[in-house]
Amino acid sequence: MAKFIVIGERIHCISPVIREAMEKRDPAPILQRAKEQLDAGATYIDVNIGPAENDGEDLMKWAVTTIQNEFDNVPLALDTANKAAIEAGISVYNRAKGKPIVNSADAGDRLSYIDLAAANDAIVIALCSAGSVPADVDERMAFCQQMLEHGMTLGMEAEDLWFDPLFLVAKGMQEQQKAIMESIRQFTEMGLNTTGGLSNVSNGMPKNMRPIMDSTMVAMCMAMGLTSAIVNPCDQRLMEAVKSADILLDNSLYADSYLEL
Amino acid sequence: MAKFIVIGERIHCISPVIREAMEKRDPAPILQRAKEQLDAGATYIDVNIGPAENDGEDLMKWAVTTIQNEFDNVPLALDTANKAAIEAGISVYNRAKGKPIVNSADAGDRLSYIDLAAANDAIVIALCSAGSVPADVDERMAFCQQMLEHGMTLGMEAEDLWFDPLFLVAKGMQEQQKAIMESIRQFTEMGLNTTGGLSNVSNGMPKNMRPIMDSTMVAMCMAMGLTSAIVNPCDQRLMEAVKSADILLDNSLYADSYLEL
Repeated sequence: MAKFIVIGERIHCISPVIREAMEKRDPAPILQRAKEQLDAGATYIDVNIGPAENDGEDLMKWAVTTIQNEFDNVPLALDTANKAAIEAGISVYNRAKGKPIVNSADAGDRLSYIDLAAANDAIVIALCSAGSVPADVDERMAFCQQMLEHGMTLGMEAEDLWFDPLFLVAKGMQEQQKAIMESIRQFTEMGLNTTGGLSNVSNGMPKNMRPIMDSTMVAMCMAMGLTSAIVNPCDQRLMEAVKSADILLDNSLYADSYLEL
Repeated sequence: MAKFIVIGERIHCISPVIREAMEKRDPAPILQRAKEQLDAGATYIDVNIGPAENDGEDLMKWAVTTIQNEFDNVPLALDTANKAAIEAGISVYNRAKGKPIVNSADAGDRLSYIDLAAANDAIVIALCSAGSVPADVDERMAFCQQMLEHGMTLGMEAEDLWFDPLFLVAKGMQEQQKAIMESIRQFTEMGLNTTGGLSNVSNGMPKNMRPIMDSTMVAMCMAMGLTSAIVNPCDQRLMEAVKSADILLDNSLYADSYLEL
């Protein structure tokens, strides 16, 4: 089995520091956050430029080349509602360390992000939703099937669609958590890769409790087969859980120093 | 769903303090450890008196009455290789807060511990082993089936056999961990209760890393359906994982204060 893939979520235009750096094309704050996440164990770095309606194409090209040039072509997830910006980013993306990830398609208005991934030999995150919260496991599986067939019709390999069960907040949507885990188990039985914004689970919780909830959730979801998540790799407790679960799933070899690796 | 049942493991004759207290019939150290575990969230307290070949019957009766009198008939797991001592303990045991647990039967030399539980209307921990490490999931399931049928033939309810997959050390038996989790999943699909000495997983690891490994393992096993474990409830990180997993499995209701409950 392959090790769990951590996609670092911290380069996101919702952060004022990152937003300003993107506007000014100031590489320093972006490279610093990329470095912190890579040092903490991220494999992929997510680059979220927001809607980016005006200069999205130029901005994504700049971000991709800036980060990949500094960090030996680290693989990236390109995250925006501006499809042209994703294509522009891919046009300058170096695949030496892995395909780009398109973040993200869904089974509704964003179905065509799968076409974009297929046309550009990219991985695509396929959110099992059509714009609202799926009712249950069955609805998630129906969206999964629809997107899987769509991608394969376009010539994609199934392994390049990473299915996202739509992680939801526990505080208020507690009864959904078992459905999320069961969906991951069913995706895994189909041999599919899986990912998603796992830290949604602890939204609205007291800040000191979030690493406790997130680390528990990631361990439970890894037991169900989750192969990746978009998370904050600088959350030490979360990463300790990921590394320990990788040992228990025999994805990496035990050594007394495994938490430092 | 019911909340996860924590069986506190810290009243064990392997501890010099507890051994001496048992020899001298000194209640103070035993009551203190019972209190610490109950305060930390244990439901059951395990009372391990060791082989207790000489005065096991008297010792177990004394321990049961000493602990139950002090803590409002807290339910206990009676843990010894001396069968007569378990029966003696049950003879003075107060069931107001729950049946006694017989710890433990297996599918080999200790099969008759199931008879003991059946004859005394007790719960029994059924270790899926016949004295050695089971080869794989299938062997565990065969032992499970054998013990389940044995208990039911004796008139037991299936819910009173708590199946133990035989938790093993990760350091050295890493490839067994997935089989343990898969066994728990299969027990759960059969509707069975499950338990075991989960903290075996981190045996031999650096001491500061054990709560990290144990808390990850308990979360993963709870995702697979584990309903109980024999653990150290004074391990705060472990208990945080148990309580968080109970929230995620909808076994207890979310409140911002759930870690303090």
